[in-house]
Amino acid sequence: MAEQLRIALAGLGTVGAGVIRLLEENGDTIAQRAGRPIAISAVSARDRTKDRGVDLSGYAWEDDMTRLAARDDVDVVVELVGGSDGPALALAREALGHGKGFVTANKAMVAHHGLELAELAEQEDAPMRYEAAVAGGIPAIKGIGEGAAANRIARIYGILNGTCNYILSEMESSGRDFGDVLSEAQVLGYAEADPTFDIEGVDAAHKLAILAALGFGTRLDFADVEMIGISRIRAADIAQARALGYVIRLIGLADCEDGGRLFQRVAPYLVPASHPLAGVSGATNAVVAEGNFAGRLLFEGAGAGDGPTASAVVADIIDIARGNTPPPFAVPVSALRHTESADPANRRNRAYLRFVVADRPGVLAEITAAMRDAGVSIESMIQEGHPEDDEGPVLVGMVTHEGREGTVTKAMDLLEGSPSLAEAPLVMRLLG
Amino acid sequence: MAEQLRIALAGLGTVGAGVIRLLEENGDTIAQRAGRPIAISAVSARDRTKDRGVDLSGYAWEDDMTRLAARDDVDVVVELVGGSDGPALALAREALGHGKGFVTANKAMVAHHGLELAELAEQEDAPMRYEAAVAGGIPAIKGIGEGAAANRIARIYGILNGTCNYILSEMESSGRDFGDVLSEAQVLGYAEADPTFDIEGVDAAHKLAILAALGFGTRLDFADVEMIGISRIRAADIAQARALGYVIRLIGLADCEDGGRLFQRVAPYLVPASHPLAGVSGATNAVVAEGNFAGRLLFEGAGAGDGPTASAVVADIIDIARGNTPPPFAVPVSALRHTESADPANRRNRAYLRFVVADRPGVLAEITAAMRDAGVSIESMIQEGHPEDDEGPVLVGMVTHEGREGTVTKAMDLLEGSPSLAEAPLVMRLLG
Repeated sequence: MAEQLRIALAGLGTVGAGVIRLLEENGDTIAQRAGRPIAISAVSARDRTKDRGVDLSGYAWEDDMTRLAARDDVDVVVELVGGSDGPALALAREALGHGKGFVTANKAMVAHHGLELAELAEQEDAPMRYEAAVAGGIPAIKGIGEGAAANRIARIYGILNGTCNYILSEMESSGRDFGDVLSEAQVLGYAEADPTFDIEGVDAAHKLAILAALGFGTRLDFADVEMIGISRIRAADIAQARALGYVIRLIGLADCEDGGRLFQRVAPYLVPASHPLAGVSGATNAVVAEGNFAGRLLFEGAGAGDGPTASAVVADIIDIARGNTPPPFAVPVSALRHTESADPANRRNRAYLRFVVADRPGVLAEITAAMRDAGVSIESMIQEGHPEDDEGPVLVGMVTHEGREGTVTKAMDLLEGSPSLAEAPLVMRLLG
Repeated sequence: MAEQLRIALAGLGTVGAGVIRLLEENGDTIAQRAGRPIAISAVSARDRTKDRGVDLSGYAWEDDMTRLAARDDVDVVVELVGGSDGPALALAREALGHGKGFVTANKAMVAHHGLELAELAEQEDAPMRYEAAVAGGIPAIKGIGEGAAANRIARIYGILNGTCNYILSEMESSGRDFGDVLSEAQVLGYAEADPTFDIEGVDAAHKLAILAALGFGTRLDFADVEMIGISRIRAADIAQARALGYVIRLIGLADCEDGGRLFQRVAPYLVPASHPLAGVSGATNAVVAEGNFAGRLLFEGAGAGDGPTASAVVADIIDIARGNTPPPFAVPVSALRHTESADPANRRNRAYLRFVVADRPGVLAEITAAMRDAGVSIESMIQEGHPEDDEGPVLVGMVTHEGREGTVTKAMDLLEGSPSLAEAPLVMRLLG
């Protein structure tokens, strides 16, 4: 067996400790599949004394994590620190600059600086891999970049954030409202104390931008991703969706016809109950890629957690040990296409519109007139009844016929500021 | 860009023609991802004159396909002939013996001769890949062998035969009986004129044996796979299963706890309606692997067809072009573990039992007495009513509590030859 591959770990949170446990528990299997043993040379984290449930005594310790990159006894640096910039980025540049292999689970950094790092990796002929950055333990990066490599891919979509999916499926099964379920998710550790990145779609957008670049062969463009979060969704929306035969999921969706414009959106969608993504509940993630020869491929599994994330990190290390080191975005950075952003106004789809309206005559006439004037055709409408003695606002849900998104935007503009509306309308598209 | 990778194609049926079309249509993308152009040097098939809708004039022709393996202008031989032995096997041996790369879609050959070929590949340092042999266009071999490489896998199961899944989901949606749907599937091209290999589970068993060896790191053992087909399933079974909250799917299932015995079975199972495999309809395939760190991974997509199969074949070629050439079963053949077969009698699960019985007093008493004597505990029973004036046999369905399979076998033995039964009972397990 060839000589061992020596790695350094930066960041010893739950995932870092998971990687150490995994390398210990499955070491024999891993060495066989990697063709050689994987050995940890050095580690670094903020606090040396913290008990992490793993024995660090066999590894060199660096207080300054960037020094891991310069060590002679390190072949691959594994970054599990997080954060799009700062120490993680400094370490990435150092590691690749020293010609070391680089493995990361850091979606924010790859989404923001992936092209720069990939160029540096190519220039230094250093392998860079980031399977764990997208969809946790699911080999989606490998599946799309290698498994579907023969295809032109025109559309990628999926459930990319476990926290949101957990919240939405809990709201669905319990009938409770968003805030209530979010609080519980925070207690259970499914949501962060500051959940903004998850619930506003930023985390999913990081992953989507990475998948789009990899799948379409376009330049990574995180700034282009439209983001709408889930915090405005009410239990009543989920009930209305269900009555129409749909569930609500936060979907990341990107498409780019060959030579065409790039569209990237993270938003709650109404997903038909018969669609494979409708059955994806809890913290599970799922990624769909549509290839021009393979057809629709779906990859599903745990989207987070120390075990699944460690599994993806070590798969990358095994690949580097075996010499399976394609360019980070499957093709050289110079070959990634520059694309313009697609105008969402020209997209055609059906939409669910929810209004919170004053319960008095004329309100529906005002809304439907705005729809007519904007050219939106209504297919169905559901009005929530409320207790007899309650004269507060009521919810009205509508589903439109298929049409240009621009018409719906125009209708919303016409209604803006209307005293009939107790809050801004909520617009969600139907997954086609 | 590096020099081109030169391939030879043996077999120009729909898949072979699909590979040519794919290399033509997506050639630029493929060359970028492969790091070099893929060029076809030579082809071979039975009939040179047949119109296959692709232009063969640029490729050398060999009447004798084994001669492809000796050509100096060929780096990789792609075998799309089929058949476990005969010309396909001769070609595989020749190609690997000449140190050429070898790519095949031939599940029967890999299931029967995979170890011999993998050893030859190792010995000659020649890459061998077979993604298209399992689950069509789904990168399941890559997903399990590489994507989940860090895991010990204890269980693999899935829907591995598109023909059976098409038939079962058609029976489900239309309420028609097996023979009727099979005939239609044959007309539509979803089933072969001789459908035995598909409907008796042989094709799924080929794939299962391959997945088990790859996932568990055990020696490939096709002869060990228990096979039960779908031809005895009636519309009434599907209706009864539905009433109980299940659908019927032909499932290939293998498990092997670390250091334990190997269990491999292809059989119709009752799958809970909420399970991801229950939603897999038509000719779609799905593979689930449970890793000790990754958790449950699911890969879903088109299980057959020229486009998806060509996609998998060319993914293998791209991997070889890039030098991603792990051992065919992820570890060297010498490292694959010898395991004994598990005794199914000791497995614990719930079962659905269906009897066709004479409609007269005492029959149920006889059946339930046999169950009691064998130690089978009955959870629920459904008896099909029949028209008042019909005195023919009736169907009785039972679901057992969880118990050893051996007890059910014993109960069936006790009932064998009973004049109360119009035909042998049908036993299907519930997917746990």
